[in-house]
Parts: sequence; C-alpha cells; structure tokens
Amino acid sequence: MSQLKVYHYPHPFELESGRILPSLDIAYHTWGTLTSGRDNCVWVAHALTANSDVSDWWPHTIEAGRFLDPAKAFVVCANILGSCYGTTGPMSINPASGEPWYDTFPRLTMRDVVHAHRLLADHLGIGRIYALVGSSVGGFQALEWAVQEPHRFDRLVLVATDAKASPWAIAVDETQRMAIKADSTWGEHHADAAARGLAAARAIGMLTYRGPEGYNISQQDPHCDNDTIPAVHRACTYQQHQGDKLVRRFDAYSYVTILDTFDTHDVGRGRGGLDNALACLSMPTVVVGITTDIIFTVAEMKALTARIPGAIYHHIDSPLGHDGFLVEYDQLNSILYNFLWQQ
Amino acid sequence: MSQLKVYHYPHPFELESGRILPSLDIAYHTWGTLTSGRDNCVWVAHALTANSDVSDWWPHTIEAGRFLDPAKAFVVCANILGSCYGTTGPMSINPASGEPWYDTFPRLTMRDVVHAHRLLADHLGIGRIYALVGSSVGGFQALEWAVQEPHRFDRLVLVATDAKASPWAIAVDETQRMAIKADSTWGEHHADAAARGLAAARAIGMLTYRGPEGYNISQQDPHCDNDTIPAVHRACTYQQHQGDKLVRRFDAYSYVTILDTFDTHDVGRGRGGLDNALACLSMPTVVVGITTDIIFTVAEMKALTARIPGAIYHHIDSPLGHDGFLVEYDQLNSILYNFLWQQ
Repeated sequence: MSQLKVYHYPHPFELESGRILPSLDIAYHTWGTLTSGRDNCVWVAHALTANSDVSDWWPHTIEAGRFLDPAKAFVVCANILGSCYGTTGPMSINPASGEPWYDTFPRLTMRDVVHAHRLLADHLGIGRIYALVGSSVGGFQALEWAVQEPHRFDRLVLVATDAKASPWAIAVDETQRMAIKADSTWGEHHADAAARGLAAARAIGMLTYRGPEGYNISQQDPHCDNDTIPAVHRACTYQQHQGDKLVRRFDAYSYVTILDTFDTHDVGRGRGGLDNALACLSMPTVVVGITTDIIFTVAEMKALTARIPGAIYHHIDSPLGHDGFLVEYDQLNSILYNFLWQQ
Repeated sequence: MSQLKVYHYPHPFELESGRILPSLDIAYHTWGTLTSGRDNCVWVAHALTANSDVSDWWPHTIEAGRFLDPAKAFVVCANILGSCYGTTGPMSINPASGEPWYDTFPRLTMRDVVHAHRLLADHLGIGRIYALVGSSVGGFQALEWAVQEPHRFDRLVLVATDAKASPWAIAVDETQRMAIKADSTWGEHHADAAARGLAAARAIGMLTYRGPEGYNISQQDPHCDNDTIPAVHRACTYQQHQGDKLVRRFDAYSYVTILDTFDTHDVGRGRGGLDNALACLSMPTVVVGITTDIIFTVAEMKALTARIPGAIYHHIDSPLGHDGFLVEYDQLNSILYNFLWQQ
C-alpha cells in the first residue's frame, strides 16, 4: 500500500502559453525505497483519466516479480497537471475568485505537464532516473521528458503511444469535446456540469480503447432462438455503464483540459521536427505495441521505433485493442521485466 | 437526371412490433427503362443518411460504362422508412396529432424497411429483380430482403455490410445516441432539436467511416517549422464541418430512428440463426470488403462470404476505411460491372 502525498510548490508556475498559475499542488505516490546510490527510480507517467496510484489502474505491475517490483524499484507516479486527483486542475480553487477554475482554467501543453513532473523529481531529490515508463498519454509525457533531458534516464519504456498526437487521435478528442459541449450544462460552474456529455465522451473513448474485435468478443448478446428483438443490447448497456462510471470519478472540465493538452503533443515542435528531436535519445529504449490497437496502430509504433536510435520493438498479441496494455499484464510484464531487470 | 417520385400507400402499414402507421409515403428515384421482359431491374438500397438519389451520394455509378449504366439497367432506389428524404419518418405528420411525430415515431426494424421496399416493387410492377445491390446499411436491407424472397433475385451484391449488426456496430450507434441525448434540447418538438448532439453523433460516425489511416492521410496539419502550437488542428475543423453539414440536411429524430433500426438487423432472428437463414441464398452473390474498414472488417466480410453458398469475395484496397465504398468507385466499378454485366 502507498499513501497519496501532495507536494505543494508555492511559487508561480509559468505555463508555455505565458499564463501563470500562482502555485501548484502535485499529487503523487511512491513504492519501494530509493537506494543510497539513488539509481533505482522508475518513473511511471499515467494515461488520460488515471491517477498517481499505479496499483489502482495498472493491475499486477507493482508486485513482487513484476516489472514494477517494489523490492527492486523506487516507483514514482504523479497525477498530471490539469487532472482531478490531487494535482492542480480546473477543480482547484482559483485564488483570484475563491472558487474552482472550471472552464476558466488555462490551456496547458504536454510540456507544462512534464515541467510539473520535473519540479516533483527535484523536490524528491531524484537526479538520474533509472527508467521512465509511459503508456498511452503517459508515453506522451515520457517522450517529451526524455527529449528535454535525454541524459537523465538510463532506460525508456514506451507502451502504445506516439511522439506526436496524430490527426486521428486529435479527431477522436475533438469528437469527445463536441459531445461534451453539446450538453448545454457545459459552462455551468459546478462539478456535475456537462455530466451527460462527459458520459458520451467516455463512450467514444471506449470505442477507440477496445476496437471492433474487443467489442465483438466481449459484448455479444446472449443467444436467443426465437424471433424476439433484444430489448437492450449488451453493447448498449456497456457503453452506458462506462459513461456513468467515469462521471462518478471525473468532471467535464478536467477531462476537456486533458484532451486539449493531449492535442498539443509534438516532441518535434520547435526542435526541427520529430526525426531530429528523437535522434537525441540514446538510452536503451523499448517500444511496445498492441496488435489490435486502433489509437496507436502497429504501423505507427513501428515507425516510432525506427525513429529512436537503437530502440527495440515488441508487441502484445491481444484482441482487446489499446486496452491491451492494461489487460494483458502477463505479456507486458514478460517484455518489461526482462528489459528493466535482466539486461 | 431523375426526378424524385413518391408512392403513396393509402392503407394501414403494420410494423413488426404490431404498431400501425396509418399510411406510407415511399420516395424513390428510377433511372433507365424496364425492358419488356422486365429482366433488368437493379435495386439499390441506400445507407444510413443517404437518400433515393443514388447519383447524389454514390459518385460515378449511374453512368455509361459503370455498373449502374442506365442504358443497361432499370435502377430503382427508395428512401428508407424512418428517414427524412420523402419516405414516412419522424418528421412526417402524425395524423392523430396534426404535427410531426418527432420522438413519438414508432420503433422500426430492418424488416419493416424491407416491407416498404416490397410494397414499392409491387406498385412498380417489378416481379423478378435482376440484381439487388446494398452497401453498408443498404446491405442490411439487401440481405434481409434476399432471405425473405431468395427466388426473386438473380444476383446479389453486398458491399461493406453484414448479416447481423455486430456488438461493435451497436456500440457505435449507442454512443451516437448518448451524444444526441446529452443535448438537452432532445425531446423538444421542432426540427432543430438536439442539433448539437446530432453534430457530435455525426462526428462519431465519421471516425468509424474513415478510421485511423484515413484521418492520418487526409487531416495532417500544415507543416510548421517554428514552435507555435497550431491554433486549430485540421482534424478538429474537419469533425466540426462534418457535424454541421449533417445538421443542415438531417434531423436528430430521423437519425436516432435509423440507428435504432440498424441495431435490430439480424437475418437469422427467428430463422434458426445466421447460417440457416443464409443457406437459402442460391443466386450468384458477390461480397466486397474494404481493406481498412473498421465497421465491417475484412475478417467479417470473409466470414459473411463463407456463409453464403457460392458467394465470391473481392476487396477494395483503400486507406479510406468504410468510406472506400463511396470514394474508390473505379475499383468498385471494375468488380461490379464485371459481376453484373460480363458474367
């Protein structure tokens, strides 16, 4: 078990846009113990709606014999800027108004998110980081950070992610924003604003996380021999359920803030393009794709691998699409345990 | 050029649910001339939001030398029941109230849609049909009709479709309904109700029509060498534009009615399952898949082919996903012209 901790950074935090947050809270979890040589930190960057408690959303990773074994690694994960799990975001109090920021929270970039991670690492006295691990949007952060400080990391792990938000991924995000803003309670200043739109947005996300094969395997209606039309299809109930589940733990303002941040991701921006930016990465790097992922396709994952000097590519064989990185923990562990601890 | 015609069926029309529409309008277009032997009718069944004017939505098909060459074929296409292009649907007047049905329009099944097609065919004096052509949801109608009257058709053409709505396709529909109903103007009795929700729903549809490769090819942002974050991504503008375009020509009530109808599609229902229902099809049949279609995947199209006695499979090689059936008309034509007129 690990406790949520919050680092309060009391100074103004300047965003890439030039706007300033008066101070920051950065929520984080750690597992294991930093060695006296400070050489065993594994930094995990989390995905879209996750939080800093890796054991909560990434099953069977922080366990003995797994790639985040706390007997070997000092694992750190911070809730990302703009989220609602303890780090400063739209539901934090804006000191100027005394109420939450809601839809007035400044736009962020992926570089702002990484900037906050760096402040926390400095606060924790972590210089070199043995391994930086990012899956999905976590991989966006990992790539951005690795490009900013290529010599800080001994190893880099990139799971189902990319060096730049693709037009396809941005279109998926825009569609989710359209669903949220079609809810006319968007803009109201309370935590439940646009809750129905948020549920629809999450359902859109789920389509892309699971993909055709994932749904066709897991959401078949029960067999029926007569000519009755099913009153409710299992696939419908599933979408509703997934939407409702997110609404209970997230809010529309934080969600849109993170989608907007997602879209800014481009490690090549202002650095002479992707190839040039990625060429500086010289640490051992593993890229892991999932055979049926429709967000970050195998073709894109292989293209990413080819751009990073010496990077190796593995895939997880799964019908469950992008969610394979969460579900297929045995396959993932065998790739990553080997990469982190046996090479 | 062909003119829209409307067949008014003045009798009560009983739906599969037992509910009754007091009468029907069926809007349709025809091209070419029925031979005296009445042996050249090609019936085209249209997809989700299309209409009976095939030349409007299926480019380069109703042309000399193409598979719907009006010098060879008497082409018929009817607007589907529940739509808003002239056939009875939610925007038609409910005689009991004197105003449009809106959200009180009865739920339909794909069998009701085919029932209306059969009434029109009888009205037009068409007995045997040389070829029944359906793409996407048009293929749902074609399969349902072919199974109802297997000896009426000389040939069957199935493009990017299936014999049963898959859990994946139903999940996509449910997500669109969630977006529409998140718009709190849903339920209001005017034609613009839930317009923003409808735009979001269309954007969801577009994701599935074009898929990852389609977006990544066509929606890249212009190249930029400096470190400016694009103010608006092209993929976002595209999604907004596609949503707005549909809102100008469709309404949320007709859209939801058709989505609901889509989900009822199962030619095996009450017929001993898909294999049994499809085994009755003995006409020459061609199934056409698209290599990157994520709604009706190549694997599903091949499985459909295997279930239809003697059916042959072709594919369209395209990066544009499901929309390939509209865009890759040269490839499609070469497959279908050959199948219809040279074998």
